[in-house]
Amino acid sequence: MSGLPIDPGVVAHHNEPRAAALAEDYDALGARLARRGIDIAAVTAKVAGFTVAVPSWGVGTGGTRFARFPGEGEPRGIAQKLQDCAVIQQLGRATPRVSLHIPWDRAPAAELRDRAGALGLGFDAMNSNTFQDHPDEPAHRLSYRFGSLSHTDPAVRAQAVAHNVECIEIGRALGSRALTVWIGDGSNFPGQSHMGRAFERYLGAMGEIYAALPEDWRLFSEHKMYEPAFYATVVQDWGTSLLAAQALGPKAACLVDLGHHAPNVNIEMIVSRLAHAGKLGGFHFNDSKYGDDDLDAGAIDPFRLFLVFNELVDLDGPGFDPAYMIDQSHNVTDPIESLIRSADEIRRAYAQALLVDRTALAGFQDDNDPLMASEVLKAGFRADVDPILARARLDAGGAIDPIGAYRVSRYRARVAAERPAVRGGGGGIT
Amino acid sequence: MSGLPIDPGVVAHHNEPRAAALAEDYDALGARLARRGIDIAAVTAKVAGFTVAVPSWGVGTGGTRFARFPGEGEPRGIAQKLQDCAVIQQLGRATPRVSLHIPWDRAPAAELRDRAGALGLGFDAMNSNTFQDHPDEPAHRLSYRFGSLSHTDPAVRAQAVAHNVECIEIGRALGSRALTVWIGDGSNFPGQSHMGRAFERYLGAMGEIYAALPEDWRLFSEHKMYEPAFYATVVQDWGTSLLAAQALGPKAACLVDLGHHAPNVNIEMIVSRLAHAGKLGGFHFNDSKYGDDDLDAGAIDPFRLFLVFNELVDLDGPGFDPAYMIDQSHNVTDPIESLIRSADEIRRAYAQALLVDRTALAGFQDDNDPLMASEVLKAGFRADVDPILARARLDAGGAIDPIGAYRVSRYRARVAAERPAVRGGGGGIT
Amino acid sequence: MSGLPIDPGVVAHHNEPRAAALAEDYDALGARLARRGIDIAAVTAKVAGFTVAVPSWGVGTGGTRFARFPGEGEPRGIAQKLQDCAVIQQLGRATPRVSLHIPWDRAPAAELRDRAGALGLGFDAMNSNTFQDHPDEPAHRLSYRFGSLSHTDPAVRAQAVAHNVECIEIGRALGSRALTVWIGDGSNFPGQSHMGRAFERYLGAMGEIYAALPEDWRLFSEHKMYEPAFYATVVQDWGTSLLAAQALGPKAACLVDLGHHAPNVNIEMIVSRLAHAGKLGGFHFNDSKYGDDDLDAGAIDPFRLFLVFNELVDLDGPGFDPAYMIDQSHNVTDPIESLIRSADEIRRAYAQALLVDRTALAGFQDDNDPLMASEVLKAGFRADVDPILARARLDAGGAIDPIGAYRVSRYRARVAAERPAVRGGGGGIT
Amino acid sequence: MSGLPIDPGVVAHHNEPRAAALAEDYDALGARLARRGIDIAAVTAKVAGFTVAVPSWGVGTGGTRFARFPGEGEPRGIAQKLQDCAVIQQLGRATPRVSLHIPWDRAPAAELRDRAGALGLGFDAMNSNTFQDHPDEPAHRLSYRFGSLSHTDPAVRAQAVAHNVECIEIGRALGSRALTVWIGDGSNFPGQSHMGRAFERYLGAMGEIYAALPEDWRLFSEHKMYEPAFYATVVQDWGTSLLAAQALGPKAACLVDLGHHAPNVNIEMIVSRLAHAGKLGGFHFNDSKYGDDDLDAGAIDPFRLFLVFNELVDLDGPGFDPAYMIDQSHNVTDPIESLIRSADEIRRAYAQALLVDRTALAGFQDDNDPLMASEVLKAGFRADVDPILARARLDAGGAIDPIGAYRVSRYRARVAAERPAVRGGGGGIT
Repeated sequence: MSGLPIDPGVVAHHNEPRAAALAEDYDALGARLARRGIDIAAVTAKVAGFTVAVPSWGVGTGGTRFARFPGEGEPRGIAQKLQDCAVIQQLGRATPRVSLHIPWDRAPAAELRDRAGALGLGFDAMNSNTFQDHPDEPAHRLSYRFGSLSHTDPAVRAQAVAHNVECIEIGRALGSRALTVWIGDGSNFPGQSHMGRAFERYLGAMGEIYAALPEDWRLFSEHKMYEPAFYATVVQDWGTSLLAAQALGPKAACLVDLGHHAPNVNIEMIVSRLAHAGKLGGFHFNDSKYGDDDLDAGAIDPFRLFLVFNELVDLDGPGFDPAYMIDQSHNVTDPIESLIRSADEIRRAYAQALLVDRTALAGFQDDNDPLMASEVLKAGFRADVDPILARARLDAGGAIDPIGAYRVSRYRARVAAERPAVRGGGGGIT
Repeated sequence: MSGLPIDPGVVAHHNEPRAAALAEDYDALGARLARRGIDIAAVTAKVAGFTVAVPSWGVGTGGTRFARFPGEGEPRGIAQKLQDCAVIQQLGRATPRVSLHIPWDRAPAAELRDRAGALGLGFDAMNSNTFQDHPDEPAHRLSYRFGSLSHTDPAVRAQAVAHNVECIEIGRALGSRALTVWIGDGSNFPGQSHMGRAFERYLGAMGEIYAALPEDWRLFSEHKMYEPAFYATVVQDWGTSLLAAQALGPKAACLVDLGHHAPNVNIEMIVSRLAHAGKLGGFHFNDSKYGDDDLDAGAIDPFRLFLVFNELVDLDGPGFDPAYMIDQSHNVTDPIESLIRSADEIRRAYAQALLVDRTALAGFQDDNDPLMASEVLKAGFRADVDPILARARLDAGGAIDPIGAYRVSRYRARVAAERPAVRGGGGGIT
Repeated sequence: MSGLPIDPGVVAHHNEPRAAALAEDYDALGARLARRGIDIAAVTAKVAGFTVAVPSWGVGTGGTRFARFPGEGEPRGIAQKLQDCAVIQQLGRATPRVSLHIPWDRAPAAELRDRAGALGLGFDAMNSNTFQDHPDEPAHRLSYRFGSLSHTDPAVRAQAVAHNVECIEIGRALGSRALTVWIGDGSNFPGQSHMGRAFERYLGAMGEIYAALPEDWRLFSEHKMYEPAFYATVVQDWGTSLLAAQALGPKAACLVDLGHHAPNVNIEMIVSRLAHAGKLGGFHFNDSKYGDDDLDAGAIDPFRLFLVFNELVDLDGPGFDPAYMIDQSHNVTDPIESLIRSADEIRRAYAQALLVDRTALAGFQDDNDPLMASEVLKAGFRADVDPILARARLDAGGAIDPIGAYRVSRYRARVAAERPAVRGGGGGIT
Repeated sequence: MSGLPIDPGVVAHHNEPRAAALAEDYDALGARLARRGIDIAAVTAKVAGFTVAVPSWGVGTGGTRFARFPGEGEPRGIAQKLQDCAVIQQLGRATPRVSLHIPWDRAPAAELRDRAGALGLGFDAMNSNTFQDHPDEPAHRLSYRFGSLSHTDPAVRAQAVAHNVECIEIGRALGSRALTVWIGDGSNFPGQSHMGRAFERYLGAMGEIYAALPEDWRLFSEHKMYEPAFYATVVQDWGTSLLAAQALGPKAACLVDLGHHAPNVNIEMIVSRLAHAGKLGGFHFNDSKYGDDDLDAGAIDPFRLFLVFNELVDLDGPGFDPAYMIDQSHNVTDPIESLIRSADEIRRAYAQALLVDRTALAGFQDDNDPLMASEVLKAGFRADVDPILARARLDAGGAIDPIGAYRVSRYRARVAAERPAVRGGGGGIT
């Protein structure tokens, strides 16, 4: 793979002085786990096999409605975005697939496939966009100001359906096998929209999209409590998302974004309930303290991320195959660095969940021994699995310290010199 | 009805000096509504036909886990509770039915029927109790400390099922036609309980209860976000309640308690979604600012209550028949007073919702005119419908000013003299 | 005032067929209030004397980080903004002052004064902006990406201080007498910023601004829980705002934006506490359901707005002089319409609060009669004061139905023809 | 100390087979930390020196307002409570002091001192109780139903003040040096209480208590958002607590209970702000997901606990001396076990915070490198410090695995045989 964006020699050179300490730590952890009856090599192999998609839009600097402060060397266009994604994968080895967003990533399919292939990347779920207007788009005539798939005007709904169908077609050409539909539809004021009829319109439009799905595709409906609608959102919680997925059919399932819930909600329980209903489609990983803050996964509440993975490991088995994707907004960090560490943090939660002694846990649960049950669970979380994560990266050709290697590579400075500066500015408030 | 707890002459005497002002206000409001094309008499008739059940336990003073400060003349036993409920109905004329709680209200059915009949009361939904231990109860051998219908031990589940089946049998003898099941089952610590298996056990136990339902009964599952379980509650939100009602069958539906949701949740949207799913069973009315505060309906956010009734009026039609009940905890007020005004507040929201010009509203919704849509809706809410409420009470034999009449009647002082004081004390914390 | 943006004849013509009904409703309400011992004319006079400032930026269409959907005829530049503000005042007669935002509203002072004067407008508090970069600004060299008044780099702090001092100077020239400082400073990740040192830097910079305040000016510090910072915000709540105002001196006070609090917080209590501390500076009115939604005042929880005004009426007296301003984001409505009704809604809350029988209320409070105390309070809220609001507008030369008159005036269509379309686009996410 | 409640031989016997693995893990961690320049022995010494008080009431089973399910062998009276506290200290070696609650723990001072001394225990802050009625108490004549220190009736306030003064006197005799005042005062309905006057009454009463403080004592005011009051609480947040502490004087400071905040609030920032104001008095540790859940420390969000300790370690220095206490409700676990592990979890957070490289952290903060700053911080949190905690316990004479040793000791079964069963029952709802 001579097409890799960072000189492999730089990575190897960065790894070299760190290898001995890693080996020592890995062995110490291995010995400790062995005492608990856990084979560290088996855990490492599982971790190495766990991957998560990165969003193409995640490599650009994000912002709030107040401002966006552009970073240096921001990518313009999908080609540069793929290059940045390749850096993340080269160093972290956890993110071999990119999730595209149409129309932002519109490009000839063959070109996209070739370029991604050369970088060692594939394509994950497609994402449509009917929460913004794109007047430059071929078929975009009507505004989504008052909604898209649930709009009162059938012509707007038809336009939004057609856009989603086009996303499916683009995805087919790229090898994707899923479409994620998130809409901002909703209302800002009580009375603005009839909540029942809006939902029926949404179901009707989603039914048309569903009808256009290839046989082996999945359709993910993604709920969100609020924003951009501030009074009522059409698909506001997992209950509504479930009703939609039930109405659509077996290829439809629910996507859980960790930041789209009401305060205090137990997200891991939603994971469990959706799995019970056969409708757990996948995840958008990120972390948040207040609303849909879209911070780096595990940055605010790493134990919550672990508890989600505890459910996933518990649910794992034949046919269990949720889609995993990162969905974050990188406002103050280098997006490449944030995505590298977020993927790592997600793997960390997975590794910790793998360490839970499930036989003991089930026993304490059956015996109604809350203290020991919670201690057994936390024993997984408390483990410092850094050596496992580093070893998985190293064995796959990545970096022991991927952020450090990235900085040493001076990739950002290089592309900053090549890419023209992007102007910042305000968000909705200007 | 010579059996009424308050001398009708006292009520009539209290009404007399207030009648003229009421007539004047009623006429002025009628004239104003007529200008909007609304017939005040028709609205008053609908309001008069709207009733809500009171909970037998609501006439006792409630408390928190920190303390309970008993009021004077608290009722002991169902006979005294029915008497207090009859006061509420006599003065307010909005609450002709009582909802019983077993085992608290256990008594011979014929005696209950007779007593209620003499007071002009009927019986609403039955409520089971598996969130407390009742060691004095005939069949109560096993503790619910670690759950009831979802307990890991089949014997505990069987005991809880049998208790619910007994509640159905008691209800049949009393003329009730619904069973409300709320359980406190859940866990306080991550790991304590397997969330998926607990839900399956719950569904299994509920299935046994469902099988015991008479043909014309309904079974309400009631969700609650938290408390008494503080990490994960088995039926934590409407999504899980919906899954349960779907699994059980057509006689099962979901009950919405206004205080059982996450912060900021849009409750009227849940009403709309459950109605869409054909699973809107009924309501427990109360108000809250923080958690399940169980305050008087409309005390904290009267507009929210109105928005719920806006959905109900919109949904109204053949076959639409949710169960309406108050469920509050009266910690610092005279429970009779709180229940009188809460029923009134609920009727207020209903009356205001009836005033909404739904044709105009639908037009503004279709035209995407958020400002006028929300103004049309608020025009209903802003109306001061006090004269309609008072007239509906007066015409039905109640009081123009029911709280005032109650105080003049000196009912509380009378029963305080008859009923021995109840000792207060702490809640869970002592 | 021939310079008014809408032909006064149009307003008069619109009022004419509505005058009789208003007179009838006003008299009926007057009779009802007289029975309670309230003189409706006195209330109307107080309401007519209550005014609130509009923000210059509020007349443009707002947006979210996802998108901004521009409206027709959006104002460009402060001249057009003042014209739109004059429409609001002409029809509603509640908003005679405009609050400017620098650098958005930069213009020669004499020109601004003349233009505003011709439109019958004055200037309220000045607002600085250090939450965005303005590379076109004279003295803006350094980025606020990582903060402004609390930035680690003294040069950035100095730039932000200089900007605020310039805002004071501009305001002096315009007749303003207050500066509102809201900063977005904070951090997205635990560890990113040292919370104690950041606050000390903030206090230092604010001290320099304070030193530049004219004798008769006030300095308002405005707190906000989160957004744009998503982990820790330097001035995150009223406690921190209070510490700042205490440290700065007697001219500093706290500004309360109704949407800047944690979920479930009792805002009226904060009003009471700040008044107790002598540090209640003023308000930014808006409404919200989830976060800082910036919806129209009273749109989501009108009772909460009333409770705030209940405190204000209670606190009113010599020397009590908070600054009142609207701060909203109009994403889906015509901003002029939203501001007209928001000002009206604020006056509604004030009028309702004036109707509360404070002697009776104090009596019930002293007697620990919670039910009657809350009923006395709600009696104020339940009153339909529409006739009072309309009469106050009419008497001052405004419209009985200001939204209706505005639509009839076709002002928006007229300016849409004159003003070039503004391009929409995304917010921070693009 | 032959008076220890558990045979030291049992502990030694339990430690013996675990010592080798601990040594191995300790050495491996030591080697790893040494590579970061950290001396594990120094960290262990600091951890060993960190202690936290246990509440006497914490060794009883708690409950909710719905029910209390008593455990086996619950302690009756302060003598048995001290015995249970001694178990916690004997095994965990982190909790040498007990915090008493009056009137629950009333007993002759000499007897208490002797008993505690024999068990190796001392006394921490005293806690008064004016949130319940105690009709059996000598001076308790008036009810706290409508408040205590802020009651409208001066006689009730005087009774509450006298109770607090008595708590100080009891504490003096026991060697305590602080009084913690938490009151449940507040209101359930808007209008029920005048928020400003209630606060002034509170300040007046607290001033009388303050006047009775010995020279070397501290007075802690503890805020709480809600419960038992559900609309407005007199001391609702840290801002109000700060105003009180400022008004009272230098011996007054604020106590932070981790569960007493609004949803999403950044608690570590409050710690920082109170320290800035010189008013950080101490902590009540526990964890929570929804409200004041009073769960075991670190059970729900261990990273949040770490972030609090990150502030504490950062603030540490001469004169920095907050009071540390656990305040939990153990509803489903053996309270002894919960307190052992909670103390351990608190020490874990402290140990992890000690591992943070503060020089590097400050550098990244100054350089505005959010990613590296947060990674440096998390490096502390990610460390598995189990070996340090175990070693600190072992070296002090405690157990390597204190829960395991406790179970082996069969202490609970022994006291269950000695102590009569306590009847359960409901909370406020019965």
